[in-house]
Amino acid sequence: MPSSRSQVPAFEVMTILDRVAQLRAAGRDVVSLCAGEPAGGAPSAVNRAAAELHAAGTPFGYTPALGIRPLREAISRHYLDWYAVDVDPDRIAVTTGSSGGFLLAFLAAFDHGDRVALARPGYPAYRNILTSLGCEVVDIDCGPDVRFQPTIAQLDQAHRKAPLKGLILASPANPTGTMVTCDELADLVAWCREHSVLLVSDEIYHGVTYDGSRGRSALESGDEATVVSSFSKYWGMTGWRIGWLVLPKPLVDPVDALAGNLALCPPAPAQYAALEAFTPESYAECDTAVEGFAAARARLLAARDRLGWGVAAPADGAFYYYADLGPQLDRFQDSSAYAAALLEATGVAITPGRDFDARLGARTVRLSFAAGEAAIVEAIERITAFQG
Amino acid sequence: MPSSRSQVPAFEVMTILDRVAQLRAAGRDVVSLCAGEPAGGAPSAVNRAAAELHAAGTPFGYTPALGIRPLREAISRHYLDWYAVDVDPDRIAVTTGSSGGFLLAFLAAFDHGDRVALARPGYPAYRNILTSLGCEVVDIDCGPDVRFQPTIAQLDQAHRKAPLKGLILASPANPTGTMVTCDELADLVAWCREHSVLLVSDEIYHGVTYDGSRGRSALESGDEATVVSSFSKYWGMTGWRIGWLVLPKPLVDPVDALAGNLALCPPAPAQYAALEAFTPESYAECDTAVEGFAAARARLLAARDRLGWGVAAPADGAFYYYADLGPQLDRFQDSSAYAAALLEATGVAITPGRDFDARLGARTVRLSFAAGEAAIVEAIERITAFQG
Repeated sequence: MPSSRSQVPAFEVMTILDRVAQLRAAGRDVVSLCAGEPAGGAPSAVNRAAAELHAAGTPFGYTPALGIRPLREAISRHYLDWYAVDVDPDRIAVTTGSSGGFLLAFLAAFDHGDRVALARPGYPAYRNILTSLGCEVVDIDCGPDVRFQPTIAQLDQAHRKAPLKGLILASPANPTGTMVTCDELADLVAWCREHSVLLVSDEIYHGVTYDGSRGRSALESGDEATVVSSFSKYWGMTGWRIGWLVLPKPLVDPVDALAGNLALCPPAPAQYAALEAFTPESYAECDTAVEGFAAARARLLAARDRLGWGVAAPADGAFYYYADLGPQLDRFQDSSAYAAALLEATGVAITPGRDFDARLGARTVRLSFAAGEAAIVEAIERITAFQG
Repeated sequence: MPSSRSQVPAFEVMTILDRVAQLRAAGRDVVSLCAGEPAGGAPSAVNRAAAELHAAGTPFGYTPALGIRPLREAISRHYLDWYAVDVDPDRIAVTTGSSGGFLLAFLAAFDHGDRVALARPGYPAYRNILTSLGCEVVDIDCGPDVRFQPTIAQLDQAHRKAPLKGLILASPANPTGTMVTCDELADLVAWCREHSVLLVSDEIYHGVTYDGSRGRSALESGDEATVVSSFSKYWGMTGWRIGWLVLPKPLVDPVDALAGNLALCPPAPAQYAALEAFTPESYAECDTAVEGFAAARARLLAARDRLGWGVAAPADGAFYYYADLGPQLDRFQDSSAYAAALLEATGVAITPGRDFDARLGARTVRLSFAAGEAAIVEAIERITAFQG
């Protein structure tokens, strides 16, 4: 009875989270490093606003499909603040997390059978959403030699084979954390413009960066890209399911129509509360959280040798450490077996690479350091003890 | 640049809501009867729970893709309470509103090109979601003679033409409010079983009924149907975006995998707060709200003659009055022109029928009485004055 297109793999992180919940329910002390969930939650002003709205018994009806106007305007000001880019609020669509944004953007821009390129390793939901919508995923294999990001030469090659309709780019990337430089991004934007390829720029990890920048936006190089962003990472509002798209003008009406039918509107309480995300106090709280990720990251980088794994991606941003397991693979069949054994034996939950990379992921794992420094210190102890 | 499949009509209600917001921002006193939004909001215990969780600064991470276990169990108990039906919580998927549920169910069950039948008039998003996913919509024209619900004879005819893969049924229906009887529902379930057609039973208006029942569930006739429901109507949690699916066993894993990729999880704060929706106090509050809809409905039915419209559908349930405009069409080109003129002249927002019925909707309007008795009394005055 299930459709063919429903045969997408479960997002393995979600499966591991289920196991984490089971272990915790059974009383196990689990250090969960499998999901990209900031431990601290939303800025206090956001929590306070939500608490007040609910305490007052506010009836939340539908909002406009693209979100409440003041939030779209606040997001527009955010682009001015962070990137010195002027974005018309009319081009901003508030969405049900970045997930809701990807779905709407892909449906609005890509037809059944369209070819869409993405980096491998990469976030598995890109591939699985596209596949379920009947698009053809074109893998661009991106190893350490290209810092895990697609190059113009690779795109030229893929496009020559058969025209691409879209390119998904993530900087900082999940699972590798790598970022493209300002020049690289401008070159990719120009290449997409020249070849009529829609660039979908996943910028949800902006602000969670360790190089002094906030990350570079595709919008700095023009207004043809579709930018996907979210309150889930820098602002720590993971479970609230609220994010946004910045759309090129021709996609605004299609996304509006699709959103009104497919989602009606993004969660209303989260929209009103998120208005408080853009105050100096909220930015300061988020920056403090990022300092915590930086401390956790530093612990992890300092423990590279002790961990005894292989080559790791440079974690320029986001909160992921993506590494080849190297010598550990002598004792385990693959990274899935390693991660499963580690979780059952020590209660440390990490994610095997298979979801991110069907080709080489059997060798790799992704460890999220969003849980913070203490969790990382504890995890390193348990992992090194486990490996003996 | 937009895809062909993005060319779905905007959900007109959302467009009118935008105009309502504009008029209100300009200081106009608008009586909005265009959307199905209960005016009272969520039960107080739900609001209180949400307020407390946010006041405590609870960090909301991802929940399992199908929702938190206690909520799935509470929904299961609800089926026992209301329908005396035993539903395994494993078959329940919490979703981002019923909208998120429709999307997942359609993707999980229907492939590109599959034929899916639905009643005309009907909820436009069924059609537009299915179309955007490449399914073929098969209209079953349902007039007053069949109480706006599909008959076995009509389904036989459509299925003979080319096999159907699915049937969407809504009882109470939107926009007509009509309900199928227990026997009719059992016959439709049996017909779907016999012809291997997936029944998607939209039961989101259950509890909002005026015949002493809660509405009949397709689950009372077996476990092959996919049931779609929501906290938006009976529980008044419209903007929270939380609903659920009850799935036949073979669709559980596909929906789980799709949900983990397409949505990650439904809004977490709403899930935890919704646990309070199933207390005796919350049911009592919701029933009081339904009494308010009943009072508004009674005012409307009593004003039938004064309104001077044509034939109306029997509003067995839901909070919609769907009527032919009858003699009013002598003065207006169609129902869209009538609704637009009414809104601009009097500030009463109703929805023209075009979205619900491409064939006859130019003659009809839908008026939502979810706004309550006072709003309806005021609207009737303004409408009759407008018509002179």
